[in-house]
Amino acid sequence: MARRSFPLSRVYTLLEPGPVVLLATAGRDGPDAMAMSWHTMLEFEPPLVGCVVSNRDWSFARLKRTRECTLNIPTAELAAAVVGCGNTSGAEVDKFARFGLTAKPAKRVAAPLIDECYACLECRVADTRAVNRYGFFVLEVVQAWVDAAVKEPRTLHHRGRGAFMVAGGTIRLPSKMK
Amino acid sequence: MARRSFPLSRVYTLLEPGPVVLLATAGRDGPDAMAMSWHTMLEFEPPLVGCVVSNRDWSFARLKRTRECTLNIPTAELAAAVVGCGNTSGAEVDKFARFGLTAKPAKRVAAPLIDECYACLECRVADTRAVNRYGFFVLEVVQAWVDAAVKEPRTLHHRGRGAFMVAGGTIRLPSKMK
Repeated sequence: MARRSFPLSRVYTLLEPGPVVLLATAGRDGPDAMAMSWHTMLEFEPPLVGCVVSNRDWSFARLKRTRECTLNIPTAELAAAVVGCGNTSGAEVDKFARFGLTAKPAKRVAAPLIDECYACLECRVADTRAVNRYGFFVLEVVQAWVDAAVKEPRTLHHRGRGAFMVAGGTIRLPSKMK
Repeated sequence: MARRSFPLSRVYTLLEPGPVVLLATAGRDGPDAMAMSWHTMLEFEPPLVGCVVSNRDWSFARLKRTRECTLNIPTAELAAAVVGCGNTSGAEVDKFARFGLTAKPAKRVAAPLIDECYACLECRVADTRAVNRYGFFVLEVVQAWVDAAVKEPRTLHHRGRGAFMVAGGTIRLPSKMK
């Protein structure tokens, strides 16, 4: 993929619409990825992202131990892989092999990028104070990549139980909002 | 609007796709509403929602003082009102009057429902521990309402600077995910 470095100051434009992401971690057993929709921006720059990873998720211990992950934003063509990642555990399945995902080296973290995703964010864990209470990790995005060819990504937005709204068109209104 | 009570256990299906919401508060000067996209589910049931309200926002002091708000989910017809709410301050403007929004009494909180929105969530502030650091409020949804006539809501998803992705169609895959 023709992936280009993307300004950290604009990372919020990728996550603010609320797409499902694949959170990828590194570990002794190889790379793993989980589907995640419970995330929000917390700060523009440096970009901080809050996200919920349950202690029932295989990724939980890996994220706590390595303090690094990537957030990879899939589009509609990857819907089956996203559901596959959501329905299986890295404890039992090599999800990259099973669902046809390609792990590529990141630049600043050990966690892999998922090559099939149109945008990839390299993250470090910045704050774990709300992890015990909510599984809420605060991540700092330290490097962002986007496939410059994708202008209106058909991102997936989970409505629950495997139903996904697929991003439609974009409307633009005059605005002073960031 | 033919608004029906909506099960609290399914509130996550409304917010997980990531729509912009109008956060409404009550106050001495009448009702106010701000546009907000920085929110995430934190727990299924009782439904907990984390959201960022900056201390630069007029709503910040009102939310801290009253410890109540509503989250109202607009669809594409309300795009101009959403941008209007985002571009003005309740310190200067009666946003309900200016942008043609109707404040209706809620059932369990003093903050108003916005009648034009297809879904409305009555919320109480449950946790303010991360407010000083991130402006991050944890809300508990105590009552939810949805316009039962709206099956595939054309919600708005902010891409930044007044650009909104409008919800497209829904795809469904077999899934064990909640």
